[in-house]
Amino acid sequence: MTQQIIALASDHAGYALKALLKEELERQGYEVLDLGTDGPESVDYPDFGHAMGQALEAGRAERGVLVCGSGIGISIAANRHPVVRAALCHDETSARLARAHNDANVLALGARLIGAEVAKSCLMVFLATEFEGGRHVRRVAKLG
Amino acid sequence: MTQQIIALASDHAGYALKALLKEELERQGYEVLDLGTDGPESVDYPDFGHAMGQALEAGRAERGVLVCGSGIGISIAANRHPVVRAALCHDETSARLARAHNDANVLALGARLIGAEVAKSCLMVFLATEFEGGRHVRRVAKLG
Repeated sequence: MTQQIIALASDHAGYALKALLKEELERQGYEVLDLGTDGPESVDYPDFGHAMGQALEAGRAERGVLVCGSGIGISIAANRHPVVRAALCHDETSARLARAHNDANVLALGARLIGAEVAKSCLMVFLATEFEGGRHVRRVAKLG
Repeated sequence: MTQQIIALASDHAGYALKALLKEELERQGYEVLDLGTDGPESVDYPDFGHAMGQALEAGRAERGVLVCGSGIGISIAANRHPVVRAALCHDETSARLARAHNDANVLALGARLIGAEVAKSCLMVFLATEFEGGRHVRRVAKLG
């Protein structure tokens, strides 16, 4: 059992997938911090990428999940914040490498590019994979 | 014919793919600025992500291509620089959306995740696709 808090944020294109991932996380006993958006009305993805950065900066969550149409825009916004290491993943392999090599603390997903089951698998692998450390520690520190 | 300068940077895992993409760009008449790495010896990917940021900040190139094993770490480093909008892409669809919606100026690729022909297609689509503008202008401005 973990009491790790996981923050979730998306734009309108990612709203439905965010809701599905939230349900899955809660079912597994994770505490979830939902930063919105709260419905299908059009919003601007950077607002939610920055909200993730601010939540992690404030220590309100340890990890995060971001969803927009492609995952690209929302992850760029989040990565403007040095506390964030947001990895845009599209399969289990990328999700595993993001944790093992980059110690990523935020998973970014493209709701219009991958299916719901692939997204769920990415999330489960992301949460289950430990950072490898070793030579990767120096590299992660250099991300700035 | 374009005289657009395209900067390239990679770590050791991305070196071979970078060399291949460089050859393709030069064949098509692009001017290329190669920021390294220059061989297969192990290096730290953030050094090359930051080199891309610095090259764009200095106006030495208009666009860039980044390659590491997964594309994740090198794109996080580059996106620490506000001048960079680095999009990690894994197929033509994501490369097209990165330009059309996010006005991405840097394409990031994972040499251990996609094949050389897919990478080449991503690059060609990335260079050929115009930014859509409209509602996306406001969002890109909010990336910060």
